[in-house]
Amino acid sequence: MSLDAKRVRNLREKVCRANLELVAKGLVIETFGNVSGIDRELGVVAIKPSGVDYDDLEPSTIVLVDLEGKRVSGDLAPSSDTPTHARLYREFPEIGGVVHTHSRCATAWAQARRALPCLGTTHADYFRGTVPCTAVMSDAQIGRDYEEETAVQIVDAFRRLDYREMPAVLVACHGPFTWGKDATEAVYHAVMLEYAAELASLAVGINPRIGPAKRALVDRHYLRKHGSGAYYGQGRA
Amino acid sequence: MSLDAKRVRNLREKVCRANLELVAKGLVIETFGNVSGIDRELGVVAIKPSGVDYDDLEPSTIVLVDLEGKRVSGDLAPSSDTPTHARLYREFPEIGGVVHTHSRCATAWAQARRALPCLGTTHADYFRGTVPCTAVMSDAQIGRDYEEETAVQIVDAFRRLDYREMPAVLVACHGPFTWGKDATEAVYHAVMLEYAAELASLAVGINPRIGPAKRALVDRHYLRKHGSGAYYGQGRA
Amino acid sequence: MSLDAKRVRNLREKVCRANLELVAKGLVIETFGNVSGIDRELGVVAIKPSGVDYDDLEPSTIVLVDLEGKRVSGDLAPSSDTPTHARLYREFPEIGGVVHTHSRCATAWAQARRALPCLGTTHADYFRGTVPCTAVMSDAQIGRDYEEETAVQIVDAFRRLDYREMPAVLVACHGPFTWGKDATEAVYHAVMLEYAAELASLAVGINPRIGPAKRALVDRHYLRKHGSGAYYGQGRA
Amino acid sequence: MSLDAKRVRNLREKVCRANLELVAKGLVIETFGNVSGIDRELGVVAIKPSGVDYDDLEPSTIVLVDLEGKRVSGDLAPSSDTPTHARLYREFPEIGGVVHTHSRCATAWAQARRALPCLGTTHADYFRGTVPCTAVMSDAQIGRDYEEETAVQIVDAFRRLDYREMPAVLVACHGPFTWGKDATEAVYHAVMLEYAAELASLAVGINPRIGPAKRALVDRHYLRKHGSGAYYGQGRA
Repeated sequence: MSLDAKRVRNLREKVCRANLELVAKGLVIETFGNVSGIDRELGVVAIKPSGVDYDDLEPSTIVLVDLEGKRVSGDLAPSSDTPTHARLYREFPEIGGVVHTHSRCATAWAQARRALPCLGTTHADYFRGTVPCTAVMSDAQIGRDYEEETAVQIVDAFRRLDYREMPAVLVACHGPFTWGKDATEAVYHAVMLEYAAELASLAVGINPRIGPAKRALVDRHYLRKHGSGAYYGQGRA
Repeated sequence: MSLDAKRVRNLREKVCRANLELVAKGLVIETFGNVSGIDRELGVVAIKPSGVDYDDLEPSTIVLVDLEGKRVSGDLAPSSDTPTHARLYREFPEIGGVVHTHSRCATAWAQARRALPCLGTTHADYFRGTVPCTAVMSDAQIGRDYEEETAVQIVDAFRRLDYREMPAVLVACHGPFTWGKDATEAVYHAVMLEYAAELASLAVGINPRIGPAKRALVDRHYLRKHGSGAYYGQGRA
Repeated sequence: MSLDAKRVRNLREKVCRANLELVAKGLVIETFGNVSGIDRELGVVAIKPSGVDYDDLEPSTIVLVDLEGKRVSGDLAPSSDTPTHARLYREFPEIGGVVHTHSRCATAWAQARRALPCLGTTHADYFRGTVPCTAVMSDAQIGRDYEEETAVQIVDAFRRLDYREMPAVLVACHGPFTWGKDATEAVYHAVMLEYAAELASLAVGINPRIGPAKRALVDRHYLRKHGSGAYYGQGRA
Repeated sequence: MSLDAKRVRNLREKVCRANLELVAKGLVIETFGNVSGIDRELGVVAIKPSGVDYDDLEPSTIVLVDLEGKRVSGDLAPSSDTPTHARLYREFPEIGGVVHTHSRCATAWAQARRALPCLGTTHADYFRGTVPCTAVMSDAQIGRDYEEETAVQIVDAFRRLDYREMPAVLVACHGPFTWGKDATEAVYHAVMLEYAAELASLAVGINPRIGPAKRALVDRHYLRKHGSGAYYGQGRA
């Protein structure tokens, strides 16, 4: 087996595991949701096939596409959301994995068309501030390449935001996308986003007028886990 | 075994499996809920017996009735909701399965007497727009054949709606009915309706003033999965 | 073994099973909750011991008390709520079992000090109308025999209600009590009350101004399952 | 093995078990949450290591620190919340265990920055009145030793409260801390706080204007289980 073949196999295995982890974490209902991962040197994206039962998922069913979303290997059609994933890889050059779910509370915020405010430290540990919600798409966009336009809306919401410090977005009337350094981390962020969204749903029920946590607290918690001054966990380089 | 006997046996097995699937999906509490399926050529409807534990359900316990809801085979009394099912099969000529549940969130919307607005794509993938809620029954209707009048209210709510694009309804103060091409699909729609209702419950808690998603988005998502232009999944005829 | 000894043993076994069923149905948190049953001919009430883990519950640990709540057999102290149970058996002569829980949604309604309106048929199938909430106890009552006064408040809430058609009550700032013809049915009513309370919590979130279902519908559903004209299930005497 | 070594081993085992109990009770998401216990005679606090998977937790991984939070034994870094635990042990001389979680509903109240009112007896059985919520930290405090300042805020909220009758606090924008006579009881209080917070979330949804339960009722229930007049359970000294 060539070196490249081994790398492709590893990528498929990792993306397959990450898709199954999404199910194990309770973020998937029926066949909704998909995870992809990229090998940037090879220019290859591995992604879940469209509408396939998670029970039937194994590394060989994972589809390979290029950075334009065109299938380069695999018998099955890739996820119908592939153009969104591909565009995000092109726009956000440092990400290695992308996740899309219809998870309960994050989707509810997307349907409510409200950005998810950072109300506390659970949120701030992973997302440095308010998780943005995209604008509703115009009819013209919907009529064009709808899935790619979804990525356009996302990128538009990040004009003044650093995607490396905010690995999540809510697509209005649709649901969340998250990303990370690889597929595994993107799934982890999807889990934390869902939990932050659940806490925030409960909190606005308790106190509808609550505003976001103060900037200093958000930064303190975010930087406890991220960046050169991080001191959470068992040591970092 | 005659051809007809085989078809009846298959229908009973399918309807029995669909009833158990309803339990597996968490849509049943105690003995609430029932699934039926029809063989239109034979003019036979197979339906759950009334008030029987799901643990005791097997194909032989499934009751056969005609299109008027009259029992044609089986030792047990059919579901007390049989007249509703029978009437729906007469009114909606292309449906092959009907489900009734008291599932958590869909029933809550029915009790709140509010139609379920289409707030996003999870909903739009299966239901093309707002899921209607019937009018509250008049005392006169309640005093007549109550279960058949339930179907009358449903049909009334579909005067300007295509039941093939909207396979669900909320019966005011009661709960949801769903349908599909067979019992299996009707159960699938009951699952998706419950999830759409849960997302909408959460969304109105987050933003009480939220309105429905725009028409173009609803159509785009519905038509991604349905009709001649569908492109979701692994290919269709 | 004498006839009476056998009847006592049966009663203990039934009450033990009913207590464990309460756990299985998810209505118990930690050691909260208790079930009792009565043998009216023997004048004996069997009840859960106080503060004992459900894991350690077996028929021999069930305590026997008389109709005044005085222990007549068993090594353990009876539930601290015994005076409430005993008084209910004296006041409601046709009940054979009593259940007290701190189950999630029914307790939330009790804490919100709101009677539980009958919003739909799931509720009406078991409870003929609004489930009452007691008045808050006076300081004088709290200072007297608190547990017996709890029953006094309950009886007071039933001055214009038939306890046989309304086998449940919410004790303000405390939680629900249910009853039935025996301990098993009382547990069943506790399960249905919790579900009705959950549906109503969701419904008032969706539509805060919702009023109760109309009387004709409540009666129709209640009488489908209860009384001489019942036609739900597989036949009754 | 010396006597002290045995006591240290026992403490580590107990603290390890208590951390795992936190997971079993559903109060932990990912690696959030930590439990500590103290041996006051030895002046040693045992605490969970930072950012370690609960699956990998065993007594030998539990870190020992002194009352200033300085590590005295163990290879791993202690929880990043160690300065909060240590300070609480110094300020509250009768506590033997401390728990911090990001549990669902208690955290939502902390994020909503609302003290948790005592709405009923479930709450009053463990917490004698309103569970306080700390003030939001000043930017200056956040910039100093953030974790120790968290304890300062907690102690500040207890200036007019007895920490022995109120073994819980909500840290604004963060989450709950609970304590008890040892790590096991502190976990038990974390479980009961979460349940009380869940009931209260539901209750304010049902009746947004609900006020706290009356003092006499709170005292009666609290004293049923605590102090010299307690009569709940199977006898106390």
